[in-house]
Amino acid sequence: MSENTWNQKHLLGLEHLDREQIWIIFSLAKQIKQRMAEGEKKFDVLDEICVGNLFFEASTRTRTSFNLAAKRLRADTVDFSGSGSSLVKGETFIDTARNIEAMGVEIVVVRHATPGASHLLAENIGASVINAGDGAHEHPTQGLLDLFTIWEHKDSLEGLTVALVGDIAHSRVARSNIWGLRTLGAHVVICGPTTLVSRRWQDFGVEVCHDLDAILPRCDVLNLLRIQFERQRTGLFPSIHEYAHLFGVNRERMECAKDNVLILAPGPINRGVEVTPDVADGSHSVILDQVTNGLAIRMAVLTLVSGRCL
Amino acid sequence: MSENTWNQKHLLGLEHLDREQIWIIFSLAKQIKQRMAEGEKKFDVLDEICVGNLFFEASTRTRTSFNLAAKRLRADTVDFSGSGSSLVKGETFIDTARNIEAMGVEIVVVRHATPGASHLLAENIGASVINAGDGAHEHPTQGLLDLFTIWEHKDSLEGLTVALVGDIAHSRVARSNIWGLRTLGAHVVICGPTTLVSRRWQDFGVEVCHDLDAILPRCDVLNLLRIQFERQRTGLFPSIHEYAHLFGVNRERMECAKDNVLILAPGPINRGVEVTPDVADGSHSVILDQVTNGLAIRMAVLTLVSGRCL
Amino acid sequence: MSENTWNQKHLLGLEHLDREQIWIIFSLAKQIKQRMAEGEKKFDVLDEICVGNLFFEASTRTRTSFNLAAKRLRADTVDFSGSGSSLVKGETFIDTARNIEAMGVEIVVVRHATPGASHLLAENIGASVINAGDGAHEHPTQGLLDLFTIWEHKDSLEGLTVALVGDIAHSRVARSNIWGLRTLGAHVVICGPTTLVSRRWQDFGVEVCHDLDAILPRCDVLNLLRIQFERQRTGLFPSIHEYAHLFGVNRERMECAKDNVLILAPGPINRGVEVTPDVADGSHSVILDQVTNGLAIRMAVLTLVSGRCL
Repeated sequence: MSENTWNQKHLLGLEHLDREQIWIIFSLAKQIKQRMAEGEKKFDVLDEICVGNLFFEASTRTRTSFNLAAKRLRADTVDFSGSGSSLVKGETFIDTARNIEAMGVEIVVVRHATPGASHLLAENIGASVINAGDGAHEHPTQGLLDLFTIWEHKDSLEGLTVALVGDIAHSRVARSNIWGLRTLGAHVVICGPTTLVSRRWQDFGVEVCHDLDAILPRCDVLNLLRIQFERQRTGLFPSIHEYAHLFGVNRERMECAKDNVLILAPGPINRGVEVTPDVADGSHSVILDQVTNGLAIRMAVLTLVSGRCL
Repeated sequence: MSENTWNQKHLLGLEHLDREQIWIIFSLAKQIKQRMAEGEKKFDVLDEICVGNLFFEASTRTRTSFNLAAKRLRADTVDFSGSGSSLVKGETFIDTARNIEAMGVEIVVVRHATPGASHLLAENIGASVINAGDGAHEHPTQGLLDLFTIWEHKDSLEGLTVALVGDIAHSRVARSNIWGLRTLGAHVVICGPTTLVSRRWQDFGVEVCHDLDAILPRCDVLNLLRIQFERQRTGLFPSIHEYAHLFGVNRERMECAKDNVLILAPGPINRGVEVTPDVADGSHSVILDQVTNGLAIRMAVLTLVSGRCL
Repeated sequence: MSENTWNQKHLLGLEHLDREQIWIIFSLAKQIKQRMAEGEKKFDVLDEICVGNLFFEASTRTRTSFNLAAKRLRADTVDFSGSGSSLVKGETFIDTARNIEAMGVEIVVVRHATPGASHLLAENIGASVINAGDGAHEHPTQGLLDLFTIWEHKDSLEGLTVALVGDIAHSRVARSNIWGLRTLGAHVVICGPTTLVSRRWQDFGVEVCHDLDAILPRCDVLNLLRIQFERQRTGLFPSIHEYAHLFGVNRERMECAKDNVLILAPGPINRGVEVTPDVADGSHSVILDQVTNGLAIRMAVLTLVSGRCL
């Protein structure tokens, strides 16, 4: 369909992004990362462009990563957060965004608790919209940085077995991973308590499993989703202790895993719950690589939606 | 008095700003807006100047508009908000401002809940002070952008009938509009519930009315002030529903208005209260123009108080 | 030990900083201050360097001062504050910092309620760490700006008698002052209620006194620490009124002081408690000089830890 040219105004999710578009992002992110490794720190790509960060949910790393990405491309940034904003005065979400656009903001990065919020925005404003997380729906730049990190270490995702472990039900990261991994040819297993992992994903070609130890020996990648204490409703799993016992990755489990298994975690990690500190800081972990790659991925996405070149 | 030169160190209000000074602002704002429309995004006016935004009340759009205006003039900006600041440690307002000045801030943009706060600051620090809202007193850049927007669409304000509709009693926007509109020769009508619109304004040459439908056919401009739910004390008007019924501008009311009536609203608007969505988004509405003009007005004001040229 | 070259990667405290290192900071700060007084506003020192401000406690002036210092050196800055950050999601302090570092932040300015937090960080990340206050332990840039301000007015600290008045027990500013003043040869007196001033400081060569009037006539400098209402536990002193009566510096006390006594206060000051307004704003007060010097000191420290030159 595309001949290696970027054809998207927005980045709203990975569900409908095809293989070619993902490769364009990866190729640009790789180039950016290499040039930064060679000492280049700033790129004159978004000079005089204004990027608005609309975060209606708490965020450190995603907001900061987008902010730094924009600054490294020499964009101006303006930050909006839920508290202290017009939202307390009763303005609608779209009115807020339209106002920001009327002030000359050309790219909007949005996080919102409601699934589909970024789509709604893209339909109602002229600026480019990048989804930085919409409820439990998608978080495409996180999905892309996870995929990019795997690709960096494994050269290809074709045929890899990638397990997403934990709270699939509430995870936008899981959804973006599932779509992206499928598109790039990986075999996806989702694994966690029955209350948090729905069998319906089988209809989308995803393997569903509730016993980590049963799948561990054949996984090339384990992506350990965080248990979101702040979102859990009582009763979805018995206890943190039991979760750690059944699904936490520790030294014993690592001994049953492949020699070259990769450990990913979107963070912020709960040490001792999803993963023990020795594994999180160990040689299989690429958790900090993910953070570094997140910057490159976001710089690539900002560049592409702006229609400018590196 | 002035021969087309700006002679103000501060912008504290429109009450004492004469016609010549207002035209200097408008002329510069128009020039800035034109150059931005031609693709110019940044102006080397405030390079190396530091603008401090002291917001002791919640604000999205005004704070953001000033921030973007400063950035487009290549100023540095530092933000202070009430929470997380020294104010929680008991420091006085003036001490906070003096400290900020001692750090090299040259222009202070201040919003404070107390009427006269910006005047107090201007008397006590050496930096230029721009009032971004002081209680129910004045909000001069909002007044200027309202006037500028009317001027853009009507070529002159002389002899126009402009109605300010809503909660006049608690509105700094109303006060700044009244002074500025009077100075530029418009006939001002204030219209709203008797509890929110005082007869005393008649002493200042303002027409006072409590029946929107009675004045509607002869208004050139309707400026629909927002009902500030967060400030209302119980009992000032019977219900939101009744307010919308009596003073909300909807399709039926628009049919009684002049063909070329302009609809302004300082926002954030309460859709369905002061104005229905079809009118807010309709062809008479210049609500988003106001936002865009706010940027140009604030860039002009920042430039003028800095003593620099475009 | 050092031959006039800076040999520190971090600035964690003044306890172990020797005289030569302090003089290197002062010499650079003096040069920066002079060049700024001559109209220079920006220095191309930290161009393309990213400074991360990690503030896990409320702060206006220190955070702002570091932010402005970084901007005057043309660094990029990213701000993290406790609220709205990953800390609410349960991430550890070190994980937060490592993540920020993985995004390319090269200098971390950290404030944290826990004594030793900045040391912990310095041991666990590769970036340079500047302590902006760790509990009641140290606040080295505040200590340095206090010392620098005294040095500016007195030419030397050797043999000066400097009194730190107030709540020594809870004050990181007191600790940094004590170490730095001792290193530069001043005689240090700590003075305040018995509940807030420990006799154990005598073991470190510090004079301890509970009667301000007894030492007043022989002090060259009075550094009036603020009473931190928000930290006080009930019972440490009888009342604010009594504190002001016993330790507040007012006109009467000034008449018993040396003619050339200097009044310092780290601020934010509680007018009428530690110091009366006439003294705070009087000719002996160098309180606003401290703020201005804070900017120069922080620019010097940022420059030195970066390994770059002015």
